[in-house]
Amino acid sequence: MTSFRFAVNVTPKPGILDPAGRAVEGSLGHLGIEGVQDVRIGRRAELTVEATEVTVARAVVERMASELLSNPLIEVFEIESIAGASSATDSQAGAD
Amino acid sequence: MTSFRFAVNVTPKPGILDPAGRAVEGSLGHLGIEGVQDVRIGRRAELTVEATEVTVARAVVERMASELLSNPLIEVFEIESIAGASSATDSQAGAD
Repeated sequence: MTSFRFAVNVTPKPGILDPAGRAVEGSLGHLGIEGVQDVRIGRRAELTVEATEVTVARAVVERMASELLSNPLIEVFEIESIAGASSATDSQAGAD
Repeated sequence: MTSFRFAVNVTPKPGILDPAGRAVEGSLGHLGIEGVQDVRIGRRAELTVEATEVTVARAVVERMASELLSNPLIEVFEIESIAGASSATDSQAGAD
């Protein structure tokens, strides 16, 4: 078995009201920040899957994303493969 | 002025309690999903910045990420450049 690390990005569907995004936009003036628009706020899940191969692992993540991590009526998700395998404790603040 | 689209991924710092991640892990049994571990739940913000060049736009996003979108005491963030420019309404469910 191999460990595969994935991220699932869940964002509001286009056209769906995004109150958190509006709140962020409303706060920009207090920070003196201009030129920012179209803010969408969603969730990001990072997880490790133990599987025999990556396609099997990704299928598990697809199922989790659609049944547990997102609401298909109002949200879309995308899955990305990320580095880190079974240990994902190496992320850094501000890293690109 | 050019439009640059970014995503900011905010996740709990390593070692910081993540109750949402534990809740997801606790739900996996109900779905009959095995082999998933190290679930971390964070936020993802997507936004467009109008700026003269990408370095200026990224500096704005860095400031937003550290002062508005994350709590530096308990969270880390990473910034990614994403496609979409000023219109980011083209994401698709389940796309990789």
